[in-house]
Amino acid sequence: MISRRELLRGTGNLMMVAALPALAESPVQPPAPASEEGTLHSRWIRLAESLKPALHEEIQHPVSIVNPVADSSQYLRWRMDVARPAAAIEERAFRPGEQFILDFGHHRTGYFSFAISGVGPNVDAPARLRFTFGEVPGDVAEPLHPYKGSLGEGWLPEDTVTIDFLPQAVRLPRRYAFRYVKVEILGTSPSYAARFRQIRAHAVSSVAHTPLPLPAGASQALWKIDAISLATLRDCMQTTFEDGPRRDQRLWIGDMRLQALANYKTFRNFALVKRCLYLFAAFPREDGLLRACVYEKPKPAAGGNFILDYAALYVAALYDYVKNSGDMNCGRELWPTAQRQLEIVGACVDSSGLFVDPRNIWIFIDWEQKLERAAAMHGVLLYCYRQAAQLAELLGHAADSACYRQTSERMAAAAQQHFYDEEKQLYVSGPSRQISLATQAWLILAGVPTRTAGATAMRKALSHSESVLPATPYLYHHVVSAMLACGMKTEALALIEKYWGGMAQAGADTFWEVYNPDDSLASPYGDVHLNSFCHAWSCTPAYLLRTIDYTA
Amino acid sequence: MISRRELLRGTGNLMMVAALPALAESPVQPPAPASEEGTLHSRWIRLAESLKPALHEEIQHPVSIVNPVADSSQYLRWRMDVARPAAAIEERAFRPGEQFILDFGHHRTGYFSFAISGVGPNVDAPARLRFTFGEVPGDVAEPLHPYKGSLGEGWLPEDTVTIDFLPQAVRLPRRYAFRYVKVEILGTSPSYAARFRQIRAHAVSSVAHTPLPLPAGASQALWKIDAISLATLRDCMQTTFEDGPRRDQRLWIGDMRLQALANYKTFRNFALVKRCLYLFAAFPREDGLLRACVYEKPKPAAGGNFILDYAALYVAALYDYVKNSGDMNCGRELWPTAQRQLEIVGACVDSSGLFVDPRNIWIFIDWEQKLERAAAMHGVLLYCYRQAAQLAELLGHAADSACYRQTSERMAAAAQQHFYDEEKQLYVSGPSRQISLATQAWLILAGVPTRTAGATAMRKALSHSESVLPATPYLYHHVVSAMLACGMKTEALALIEKYWGGMAQAGADTFWEVYNPDDSLASPYGDVHLNSFCHAWSCTPAYLLRTIDYTA
Repeated sequence: MISRRELLRGTGNLMMVAALPALAESPVQPPAPASEEGTLHSRWIRLAESLKPALHEEIQHPVSIVNPVADSSQYLRWRMDVARPAAAIEERAFRPGEQFILDFGHHRTGYFSFAISGVGPNVDAPARLRFTFGEVPGDVAEPLHPYKGSLGEGWLPEDTVTIDFLPQAVRLPRRYAFRYVKVEILGTSPSYAARFRQIRAHAVSSVAHTPLPLPAGASQALWKIDAISLATLRDCMQTTFEDGPRRDQRLWIGDMRLQALANYKTFRNFALVKRCLYLFAAFPREDGLLRACVYEKPKPAAGGNFILDYAALYVAALYDYVKNSGDMNCGRELWPTAQRQLEIVGACVDSSGLFVDPRNIWIFIDWEQKLERAAAMHGVLLYCYRQAAQLAELLGHAADSACYRQTSERMAAAAQQHFYDEEKQLYVSGPSRQISLATQAWLILAGVPTRTAGATAMRKALSHSESVLPATPYLYHHVVSAMLACGMKTEALALIEKYWGGMAQAGADTFWEVYNPDDSLASPYGDVHLNSFCHAWSCTPAYLLRTIDYTA
Repeated sequence: MISRRELLRGTGNLMMVAALPALAESPVQPPAPASEEGTLHSRWIRLAESLKPALHEEIQHPVSIVNPVADSSQYLRWRMDVARPAAAIEERAFRPGEQFILDFGHHRTGYFSFAISGVGPNVDAPARLRFTFGEVPGDVAEPLHPYKGSLGEGWLPEDTVTIDFLPQAVRLPRRYAFRYVKVEILGTSPSYAARFRQIRAHAVSSVAHTPLPLPAGASQALWKIDAISLATLRDCMQTTFEDGPRRDQRLWIGDMRLQALANYKTFRNFALVKRCLYLFAAFPREDGLLRACVYEKPKPAAGGNFILDYAALYVAALYDYVKNSGDMNCGRELWPTAQRQLEIVGACVDSSGLFVDPRNIWIFIDWEQKLERAAAMHGVLLYCYRQAAQLAELLGHAADSACYRQTSERMAAAAQQHFYDEEKQLYVSGPSRQISLATQAWLILAGVPTRTAGATAMRKALSHSESVLPATPYLYHHVVSAMLACGMKTEALALIEKYWGGMAQAGADTFWEVYNPDDSLASPYGDVHLNSFCHAWSCTPAYLLRTIDYTA
């Protein structure tokens, strides 16, 4: 069996991945426009491109010159001591071997600019500078080399730039995600030093509106978590819903679905969701299975990853969009695409109504490697059938709706029979009868247990010493959603305060891709400097906190 | 005494140079436009800018993929073995850790472009590439780090570039001087390799004309030397006469004067010379002394170096221009500037008519450190008085002309009395009575000896075992000029064939800043990778060979 890690964004080697027939397509082939389907997909790409939002640019001034100090009492391992106000940078000139770190005070996605001049009798050589962009202190405090990560080294947030002629105003051409910027002077000349002025960040986002506020009654702690969630969503909302502005910068179905939920309750940019739904739909595999991700730049193109749960969840994302926007035309046009995902993933359901892992395609659920995914994936698919039934009804496809309801009932019964442990009063998965929050969460969201039985199962799993916990905010979102779905409001809020609040207390400006309170160096990529510290799937408190009645 | 090296382009430290009152001015101050003089200088800058030529761009294809092989029998220490035709680069894709070197077949100044795409199931990370540009094999065959040179590290011809989105056509933003390009793949991702297509150089030059040919009768060997000289001049002729397109890229009086001489006999771009004469004139020190160099970009600005011999030679460059172009207006307008240089440098002439080194300002003559410069500098100044006398006459300033002739005669007599060694029948310089080609060359060019006595002195110096030889083609030019001036045509041609022909035989595509047949690692900057291998002051065979009657 090929491990999920190997199927992932770069941890397997090329030969191994190429040996999988289902995954071997070249990702950059545009749909062939000769066929009727190709013509349709080309039209969808044009439609998606027509919906590309303009980005708003906001100029940010650096706040402080900071010094990182190793501090084992901090989750992030460093604290940033303020050395001087940022304006002090203009008071002196810098020579090769010197460096400084600026703190912009908060995380933004954007560009970096500065004016540089030479101070000395002869500005007689180019200036060579290295810039390192930090989302968190470790990015600029720790050496990035030698690089040991499993993803492309080009993701390391650094660039060396040579400026031929001084004085010069420079705007670095690449976009970065950062709060901190380390500037290292590699070369001036013995005859001059480099003076910096007008150092600026140019934050970009497609967010144009102020968000709808939290409902009355939310605590101060929740307002803080909400503010960080909104910053996370804002920094990921560019010309698509990016998974993270530092790394991948890519449109994934699973991440986008959660961002869209938060967006409906906050910034309400419906066109951006529509654009993304069409981008996914325009690049199916030959059999119609959607890619887990698509690329936007330099032009829209198919990603090389397939994830079964993400493909299934496309229908949920479409239903959420149609329900929130009222855009029935879009719903009708993309309905066959959504149906096709259920057909393909549904083919893994056996005659007893049970999802069976085909073992040749990635099932994500969470980054936790030891998680037994069968029950959770069954739950995802069942949840999607139920969403499909509702979307079909909304679109006026009554027969489809009835059919999906029928399948749902069969799968719900099979789940109860196969995954429920009567004695433990919770759901288990796999040959080892593994207990996990993932399994409880997805079977609850899929409506397998009653509210009461669901709450019992979740509580039992939460208190069980061997229960497998989530590794990512993505799965924590589904756990909290499930808790809210079965009336565990107080516990759900407590979990938000503990998990997302834990990141906030640890100094998060935006919420992280990975947060393991017990291991600040945890990384799915072998190098924490590749982790994304502003990650779309972590923004959902902005959604969850707006679904709650605080007065009840 | 401050050494020449310290006064130079970056070998002294800032504090030391700043401690010299005469050199402490900030180089980037524009002339104050409030004064009458400031207004004049502003007008001259505008005039110079109006004369800025358009650059012609020519697309160059790489010829071969090459492998450097260490070869101690080669002057350049490496030979380049052809591995495959350059087109083969498109046949495969490259992974991190791999590299290749392309040979464009000849040296050009210009830009580098390529198309890059990803090959593999998932082009899921930026590509990071390092480019190293080689004028000669060692540039791309030897490691550039750790850097030990005395000039700014930014001159090392390398850049690391991150390309976010593939496929992409990329044109690197900086201009380089190169024949070879090493491409190192630093980062792709485990899911893709990088394929390169359409690799091109975009050669730029302001040369638009084909050159006038060599006179009839020149040998095949001289035609080859001439072709390399023309390539050198072409690659240095940009929007100014640059000293070298790799390093400095700057307008120096001494270099420009020699380029202009070659230009009059070949490409005949008079406007470019005029532009440069005005650029120098627009940035004098407060007392009127011209800077040895000026900067063109980002906007015209004063250089921080002063060189006595270069300042004096401004009048020679102006005379050459007026004589060749017939542009009397320019001659008249810049005449006071040229006169002022002679006044300032002439103030170093004592009551006996002898130039006395003021010891607080750089006298160049050549890079040879042990050279006693007093006699040669006396010769330069005397030569300039004689040129000034002729220019004054041409411009109708009869009284000035007479005055300069009078000074010339006094200085010629003083030189003969002070520097001539009756016994050795040659000229000597300094307390050690040093014999050098520099001394003979400049006193001959200054018209101190008769033709016969000059030829005798030069021959004696050439054959003397302790004679200090030139380090640079700049001084070799003056030696050959002096030989031609005193009828040593055969020996002059032999020297050209030996010295410039030696570079040609060693593989020069363009002539070098420094050529020491006995030491291929010789560098004035502590690192041969900073040497310029296409250097303006080495292009003068194109001039010298066109002044000769091969039929006589």
